[in-house]
Amino acid sequence: MASRIKVAVLGATGLVGQRFIQILSKHPWFEVAYLAASERSVGRKYRDVTKWIVENNLPEDIGEMVVERIDADKIKEEGIEIVFSALPSNVALDIEVELARKGLLVFSNASPLRLEKDVPLINGEVNPEHLGVVETQRRVRGWGGVIVKNPNCSTAILTLAVKPLLDEFGLRRIIVTTMQAVSGAGLRGVASIEIIDNIIPFIEKEEWKIENETRKILGRLVDGFIEPLDVNVYATTTRVPVVDGHLEVVYLETSRSIDVEQAINTLEEFRGVPQDMKLPTAPEKPIIVRREVDRPQPRLDRLAGGGMSVVVGRIEAKERNMLRMVVLGHNTIRGAAGAAVLAAELYCKFYGLV
Amino acid sequence: MASRIKVAVLGATGLVGQRFIQILSKHPWFEVAYLAASERSVGRKYRDVTKWIVENNLPEDIGEMVVERIDADKIKEEGIEIVFSALPSNVALDIEVELARKGLLVFSNASPLRLEKDVPLINGEVNPEHLGVVETQRRVRGWGGVIVKNPNCSTAILTLAVKPLLDEFGLRRIIVTTMQAVSGAGLRGVASIEIIDNIIPFIEKEEWKIENETRKILGRLVDGFIEPLDVNVYATTTRVPVVDGHLEVVYLETSRSIDVEQAINTLEEFRGVPQDMKLPTAPEKPIIVRREVDRPQPRLDRLAGGGMSVVVGRIEAKERNMLRMVVLGHNTIRGAAGAAVLAAELYCKFYGLV
Amino acid sequence: MASRIKVAVLGATGLVGQRFIQILSKHPWFEVAYLAASERSVGRKYRDVTKWIVENNLPEDIGEMVVERIDADKIKEEGIEIVFSALPSNVALDIEVELARKGLLVFSNASPLRLEKDVPLINGEVNPEHLGVVETQRRVRGWGGVIVKNPNCSTAILTLAVKPLLDEFGLRRIIVTTMQAVSGAGLRGVASIEIIDNIIPFIEKEEWKIENETRKILGRLVDGFIEPLDVNVYATTTRVPVVDGHLEVVYLETSRSIDVEQAINTLEEFRGVPQDMKLPTAPEKPIIVRREVDRPQPRLDRLAGGGMSVVVGRIEAKERNMLRMVVLGHNTIRGAAGAAVLAAELYCKFYGLV
Amino acid sequence: MASRIKVAVLGATGLVGQRFIQILSKHPWFEVAYLAASERSVGRKYRDVTKWIVENNLPEDIGEMVVERIDADKIKEEGIEIVFSALPSNVALDIEVELARKGLLVFSNASPLRLEKDVPLINGEVNPEHLGVVETQRRVRGWGGVIVKNPNCSTAILTLAVKPLLDEFGLRRIIVTTMQAVSGAGLRGVASIEIIDNIIPFIEKEEWKIENETRKILGRLVDGFIEPLDVNVYATTTRVPVVDGHLEVVYLETSRSIDVEQAINTLEEFRGVPQDMKLPTAPEKPIIVRREVDRPQPRLDRLAGGGMSVVVGRIEAKERNMLRMVVLGHNTIRGAAGAAVLAAELYCKFYGLV
Repeated sequence: MASRIKVAVLGATGLVGQRFIQILSKHPWFEVAYLAASERSVGRKYRDVTKWIVENNLPEDIGEMVVERIDADKIKEEGIEIVFSALPSNVALDIEVELARKGLLVFSNASPLRLEKDVPLINGEVNPEHLGVVETQRRVRGWGGVIVKNPNCSTAILTLAVKPLLDEFGLRRIIVTTMQAVSGAGLRGVASIEIIDNIIPFIEKEEWKIENETRKILGRLVDGFIEPLDVNVYATTTRVPVVDGHLEVVYLETSRSIDVEQAINTLEEFRGVPQDMKLPTAPEKPIIVRREVDRPQPRLDRLAGGGMSVVVGRIEAKERNMLRMVVLGHNTIRGAAGAAVLAAELYCKFYGLV
Repeated sequence: MASRIKVAVLGATGLVGQRFIQILSKHPWFEVAYLAASERSVGRKYRDVTKWIVENNLPEDIGEMVVERIDADKIKEEGIEIVFSALPSNVALDIEVELARKGLLVFSNASPLRLEKDVPLINGEVNPEHLGVVETQRRVRGWGGVIVKNPNCSTAILTLAVKPLLDEFGLRRIIVTTMQAVSGAGLRGVASIEIIDNIIPFIEKEEWKIENETRKILGRLVDGFIEPLDVNVYATTTRVPVVDGHLEVVYLETSRSIDVEQAINTLEEFRGVPQDMKLPTAPEKPIIVRREVDRPQPRLDRLAGGGMSVVVGRIEAKERNMLRMVVLGHNTIRGAAGAAVLAAELYCKFYGLV
Repeated sequence: MASRIKVAVLGATGLVGQRFIQILSKHPWFEVAYLAASERSVGRKYRDVTKWIVENNLPEDIGEMVVERIDADKIKEEGIEIVFSALPSNVALDIEVELARKGLLVFSNASPLRLEKDVPLINGEVNPEHLGVVETQRRVRGWGGVIVKNPNCSTAILTLAVKPLLDEFGLRRIIVTTMQAVSGAGLRGVASIEIIDNIIPFIEKEEWKIENETRKILGRLVDGFIEPLDVNVYATTTRVPVVDGHLEVVYLETSRSIDVEQAINTLEEFRGVPQDMKLPTAPEKPIIVRREVDRPQPRLDRLAGGGMSVVVGRIEAKERNMLRMVVLGHNTIRGAAGAAVLAAELYCKFYGLV
Repeated sequence: MASRIKVAVLGATGLVGQRFIQILSKHPWFEVAYLAASERSVGRKYRDVTKWIVENNLPEDIGEMVVERIDADKIKEEGIEIVFSALPSNVALDIEVELARKGLLVFSNASPLRLEKDVPLINGEVNPEHLGVVETQRRVRGWGGVIVKNPNCSTAILTLAVKPLLDEFGLRRIIVTTMQAVSGAGLRGVASIEIIDNIIPFIEKEEWKIENETRKILGRLVDGFIEPLDVNVYATTTRVPVVDGHLEVVYLETSRSIDVEQAINTLEEFRGVPQDMKLPTAPEKPIIVRREVDRPQPRLDRLAGGGMSVVVGRIEAKERNMLRMVVLGHNTIRGAAGAAVLAAELYCKFYGLV
């Protein structure tokens, strides 16, 4: 490839924004050419307005970049094709639509539009074929660009672990209890006084998101639209005093009877389109099974596969048709920025941009 | 009452032992007259050998008591009738049997014998009538005394919240995910390096205990023996960085269809024999329902009812026959020492000791 | 006393506000008659607008009170004499001055005016005589009421432990390193992602406050004004993942040579005016010395004396004139609301209100 | 270099042992050829007996190695020249002496012998010339091999930051307060119930170690022996709920007057012999100065320079001759295994082994 594709990051100073920077700063296809954040940061150097909080230092060249306003025309003038959005939900919709209308390819972590039938909600290895609905999207909405969403953090982790088992055993019901890291709420989302020596058994809108996004991601393309899977999903979400890494206790009621060793093999051997295409952000093994009784653990396993793998353990058959497992994934990598970058890589391959 | 009943505490220096001391030090019926602990503590003052770690200071008079060996004859000679055991599982069996054989009333937090059909496993408000099997026990085993067990910590909390719903709606399946405080593992059970910024999705033998003890506690007396309830119980247990208080996410599949307000009323209005008898350790309300979306929380709710109440929140009907709730209880009070003392109080009332 | 003195609490929904409520709700002299908070809470029940986060439940009767605007005339009309202020620094000054001008007795935890020579900065046992400057204050400022401040949290704890040693050995230099609980920053002051598995070695303006307030509190009244003690104070302040309780490592360079046992006796036997007067909020022993090598500890010692005592340990002479000790105190009780209430009690006694 | 030098790791399953494995597994000069641990691990695969708890996975080839007894003859037969010891203090002395007597080069993290005048206590950049005392050691003790010690964790971090300032300004007194991570106590050293929501203001023998080892490391070679620096060192050590990384608040009283910018430059420009020699484990910059007010922080800075750099911040002159700074270092890398490996690299260079 002669030169890299220029990309913008919106909401660059937040926690997911920082993860975008971290992943993109050494990306072989993409080059960070535009950083946007809220008004009080505009005009200042990225390193001066960012409370950098992820592992490893802020890449020096990106630290020197000046933060800009979100200006679709300016973004286009600078030759940018792809926009990664880590915007807060309450402002994302209008901005992202405007950018797509002006011809930009928007890969967004924000929740608005995630459940629209013509908006792909992509978890790279799980439903790459859903990217095809962008053609419907363009037709229906008349946009020059597109909007592609990545799932809510818990859903990205859950669906990656569930997909191979759905294919192997069929699915009737999913019951999931999550223990979610504080980074999932952003830089200031959870006050320390709320969470030290404590658990909060509630995360706003999270259960609804998991239940609905899971059905959509596991669904199929019908006549150019996405039709959700007909499965009952029940989620209980809690916040725990962990920095990064969501742990999920999952019960699956299956259509066919379960063999535990077969389930383990199915998970371990699972590979998706991103692996076949050797996409830069695709982990070698999307699902890692640990057979030790006390794994996965957030602190020890969250960076498996560079934060893009999920780690599964404690797999047991509780009834002939009920499987229990514990799933862990990195919430701001696989569950946010990493999933968006992987979706963009898929798009670039599918539509010949690289 | 002219004078208080003399009691012994075995395993007095450990965490559950400390809770026994805390509860018994101001008890209106019982007087701590004998403290026993492991060999290296014998002959020394309790306060010199105990790393006191519960809220409030060590009661001064008890701190001055000298720790003794476990010697059934000596215990009897000193006029002690009741023995509270916080012994480790690996030594409890032989000692407790010896004490019961010699005529002592043993109320024990140790796991051996919990599932025996002639050994009552008592959670005060849930199954007080099970105490009646002590008569079978005496007959079958030929003991002068008795052994009465209290449930595993998670099970005590779970069954208290489940009992009124079982009576109201019937039960087919219980799926529970626990997030358990480190105090559940005793003073040295969980190393700090394992649990800071982390969760451990496994607790040795805990799931098996919850599954089996729950069935027994919710069972009924048949011909002088306890017959377990025929219900499927599936438990996944995790350790979290919380000092005290186990949180449990519970899904109940019921026989009859659920009405949420009716379920809430059932829980709030539930009172047991300990409340009717106004037992000293019985909380006024055994179950407290919180309607805020973000409760119960361990740090805020664990001392409800002096640590003897469970707090229930997030009650929702997920299907016509499936109810979800989040339950919290204090693991070393309701889940251990408090439950044992409450069982002893019941026994004293039933058999006319007070 | 026929009836209790009516008091108002400003900033009632915040963390220090909650501590005021907690202390005042069972106060023998004071009756909470007015609660004020920010605009969005006005007109609503206190319990509906407050994220109650301190131990024990919100007192029920206070929960039912309606939150009001800060309106000096209305406060006076309702017969209120004393106002406790937990207002944020940026709004406190104007409001408190207005209230004092209108004749109210304002006891304030907010930092503005703390270093003014005619404003008493009272730590009950340390400098009760400083209350006398209210007469200067009234004269100079022409107010009908008064403003009395309590010290910054770390300073309140530090000066209580230092005062008896100053009297005994004289003081040339204080070097203190603090490890401060997150509650010191209020309900949302420290984000959880900043502090889990971490320490932040900086607290805005805190070192300056400790250095200057300490000198003032340990100073003396000269001609109706407070003259600070001439002593060098160097503070380094850090934030640690602890909910409540500030720990301080203190090195004192003294004028006279140190005898450790004498220092311990001096601390243990210290009693102040609040103890002599048996004020309701005064702890029996303002300073508790622990001789165990590993005390004080925040979780075990912060509620000593109802949170109004400081606990001192690890007392050693490092040089003939240098004493090292570790001091712990409850930052929102002794270090904030409790200190303000104690100052008000002193005032009431000195000026015959009770 | 044709082939790598074979090395053994003793105490390989513990936390410092794991760090040795991590650092040595990709070492360009050294090859791990022998793993020893306690009796119950002997004969089993390293991965089966080790609770691997450091970042990154256990290197696969080392995981397959069989754990052996400590047998000096066998170690020599296998062609091993260097032994890294992470043995517990209570067994280290006899074993290490035996190995040195048999001709092995022992680099040890264990505390015995650290203060002997003929035993080098090496912190690579600070006192590489002290390695020269091995010649005295061999002569005096008649060993074929040698014993070289690395400092206590807190001391290694402290002396690295202090050394350039000693050279620049002279030193009269060091007052240091540490906040030490739980990993400093090994895998089971601190129970979680002791440290969640808490601080323990005491670490057994730690203050004595810091005070004495610092003087020795900053001392000089006189007639083949090490003569400690004549400086007063006062340490107060605390344990905090942090996984890795010791934070130290340091006050230095200097002989000459301080200029802060000069101090900063001195620290930033400091390079030692390991940097000059480009040793494999030497960080590019041994000391990193952060000018942000809120750094260093354990979670963000502990892996600076691969865990071998110390990070210094909050540098201020408190008096003309008193400088305050906050220092952070990784306790099991710079403070243990990394320091030992760096010392071994120096030795290999000095004595021509590479």
